[in-house]
Amino acid sequence: MFTPSKRSAISPFLAMDVLRDANAAEQQGRSVVHLEVGQPGAPAPKPVLEAARRCLETGRLGYTDALGIRDLRERIAQHYAEQYGVTVPADWVVVTTGSSGGFNLAFLAAFDVGDKVGLPTPGYPAYRNILAALGIEVVDIETTAADRWTLTEDNIRAAHAEHGLAGVLVASPANPSGTMLTPDALQAVCRTCDELGIGFISDEIYHGLTYEGDAHSALQYSDHVIVINSFSKYYCMTGWRIGWMILPEHMVRPVECLAQNLFISSPELSQRAALAAFDARDELEEIKRGYARNREILTNGLRDMGLDEFLPVDGAFYVYVNCRKFTNDTVDFCRRMLAETGVATTPGADFDPERGHQYMRLSFAGTQSDMKEALARMAAWLPTQQS
Amino acid sequence: MFTPSKRSAISPFLAMDVLRDANAAEQQGRSVVHLEVGQPGAPAPKPVLEAARRCLETGRLGYTDALGIRDLRERIAQHYAEQYGVTVPADWVVVTTGSSGGFNLAFLAAFDVGDKVGLPTPGYPAYRNILAALGIEVVDIETTAADRWTLTEDNIRAAHAEHGLAGVLVASPANPSGTMLTPDALQAVCRTCDELGIGFISDEIYHGLTYEGDAHSALQYSDHVIVINSFSKYYCMTGWRIGWMILPEHMVRPVECLAQNLFISSPELSQRAALAAFDARDELEEIKRGYARNREILTNGLRDMGLDEFLPVDGAFYVYVNCRKFTNDTVDFCRRMLAETGVATTPGADFDPERGHQYMRLSFAGTQSDMKEALARMAAWLPTQQS
Repeated sequence: MFTPSKRSAISPFLAMDVLRDANAAEQQGRSVVHLEVGQPGAPAPKPVLEAARRCLETGRLGYTDALGIRDLRERIAQHYAEQYGVTVPADWVVVTTGSSGGFNLAFLAAFDVGDKVGLPTPGYPAYRNILAALGIEVVDIETTAADRWTLTEDNIRAAHAEHGLAGVLVASPANPSGTMLTPDALQAVCRTCDELGIGFISDEIYHGLTYEGDAHSALQYSDHVIVINSFSKYYCMTGWRIGWMILPEHMVRPVECLAQNLFISSPELSQRAALAAFDARDELEEIKRGYARNREILTNGLRDMGLDEFLPVDGAFYVYVNCRKFTNDTVDFCRRMLAETGVATTPGADFDPERGHQYMRLSFAGTQSDMKEALARMAAWLPTQQS
Repeated sequence: MFTPSKRSAISPFLAMDVLRDANAAEQQGRSVVHLEVGQPGAPAPKPVLEAARRCLETGRLGYTDALGIRDLRERIAQHYAEQYGVTVPADWVVVTTGSSGGFNLAFLAAFDVGDKVGLPTPGYPAYRNILAALGIEVVDIETTAADRWTLTEDNIRAAHAEHGLAGVLVASPANPSGTMLTPDALQAVCRTCDELGIGFISDEIYHGLTYEGDAHSALQYSDHVIVINSFSKYYCMTGWRIGWMILPEHMVRPVECLAQNLFISSPELSQRAALAAFDARDELEEIKRGYARNREILTNGLRDMGLDEFLPVDGAFYVYVNCRKFTNDTVDFCRRMLAETGVATTPGADFDPERGHQYMRLSFAGTQSDMKEALARMAAWLPTQQS
């Protein structure tokens, strides 16, 4: 007989609950506009698809080295030289099953049960939920719109003084807000963590998707960080479940042992195809210009209908909107909007259990017509919701 | 700064360490015969490859429902009616990223830190290593060759009386020995666990690969079990990382929340392609007949060179050989055999930390010429090793 463990009582990833309900509605023939999950509307770039096709022709797809195929690890290392001007040995690169695989491995390798890890709130819900499932205590570091929803040297020091942190995690560009740390602010976070002797995990999954200047990597400022990245977002490969980590050298073998046992290896087709992703820059930049247009359309459209409380979106493909003019319960609001208009969005409680009930996240990673259609449906529905 | 967590100090999966060394030797131009990992020499069956090709043509590969695409869940449910004559609602089927994903989810959903889970020793090393990483205490239930290396009602009751188990896990056919529980023995294990009120996880990954009659599913004897399975072995899809679980109804939502956060979803291409795997029965049975021939060749060849202490192989594609005539340290023995002959095998310590040092596991999932080549190289080398 099984009973659910105490640690399985984590929160759902609400965006995925919405996706499930939206998919079910579509299967029943309803028209749904997907603004709920952060996934590119475009398929993987052509060189990736071509590499995948060749891979299907050439024989068996098997287990690879747990840390990933050598060619891909070397190509990722080269990316750090090209993009950021930093030297990363291929031996420090770990290919993972999406960034999700990276988070699982990094958290298990770095933290024990009862350790405390600081997270900026609002933030990506899987951080807190994976940490909780693995017995690691989440310390919410409440950020503010005034601070552009980011960690700072001050709020890290304060949280560490109060709680005794084992580490902190930051994403820049951030989910759900699209805000970014300036290079100086990122350097200050790295320096602060090094000074305090705590671990810093830098989630760089939205790198490449920036509209106001390139993102910097934490590896430019510290050798002690763990960097998480993925082919899902900029490279349009969500469903391929393929990502990577850069580790401090002494963390590689512990992560290898964990990866061998917990994952065996990442999907081989995705690994071989991802190798071609770095050759698709022109195609990917064109897709990014589409996001930039979507950003314009969506933010203007939201403002026009009175949903005007959000920060400038520097990167990623999300708008995190305060909806207090219309509701104080966006879980209900988003559910009704999906049911009544077919526009799927994610309630803010996914990202901020306390204050998120006034917020909603909309993804503009879809097509331009998705944006226009969603705005039209929302504009017709929203006036019925004035609180 | 990061230091490796205490819980990351798990054992490596030695077969994966051997695979890494064997791959490195091959990259340096050496000829390696791979008998170390349990993976089919054949590529995925034709309908699977065809489905994958179509999938690459038809557009974006994206996040799916965390529990898997509906069509595949329904097809898997149908498989239980066809193969075992049991009714399994599609809602109880969870598509996972290989059986590895299934174990991670099942262990987290069912067991808390400090819970005790009984494992037959020898057994698949990732069970114990994942459990350890997740803070679950492994209770080794030492089985014997005389008992065909399996759990019995008696040894489960004894282990529970001594340790207070939260659950037990059994694979039949078993890795590394290829032995099977009889239907009566499996039923007794199910009944015993139900009577003791403890969880039973049935690893059925080697179902389909049986040489002396079909395997029975634990679902034929109990509604309270968790069944783990995969497309990796019988269906020849190791590198696709796609498997499934059948859960008791009340465990579905806890597992869904965990899956949303820890995995998001399984690779979409693999999910869509796996749907076609059930239509490839003729091709897969032909491959199985190849294993049966390999089994004959390998077991005869081993006996001829004096490696004759192993049990009859009822299923899977492994021989677990006692090598005490030649060595009491198979970690060293296997390493030297790989270095000196290019034959890669897995030392028994992977499966049994205590007694395994006299044992070695050989996989016969490769080609017939692999078997012959490995035997020829071993036959030439072994006489130099007489202890």
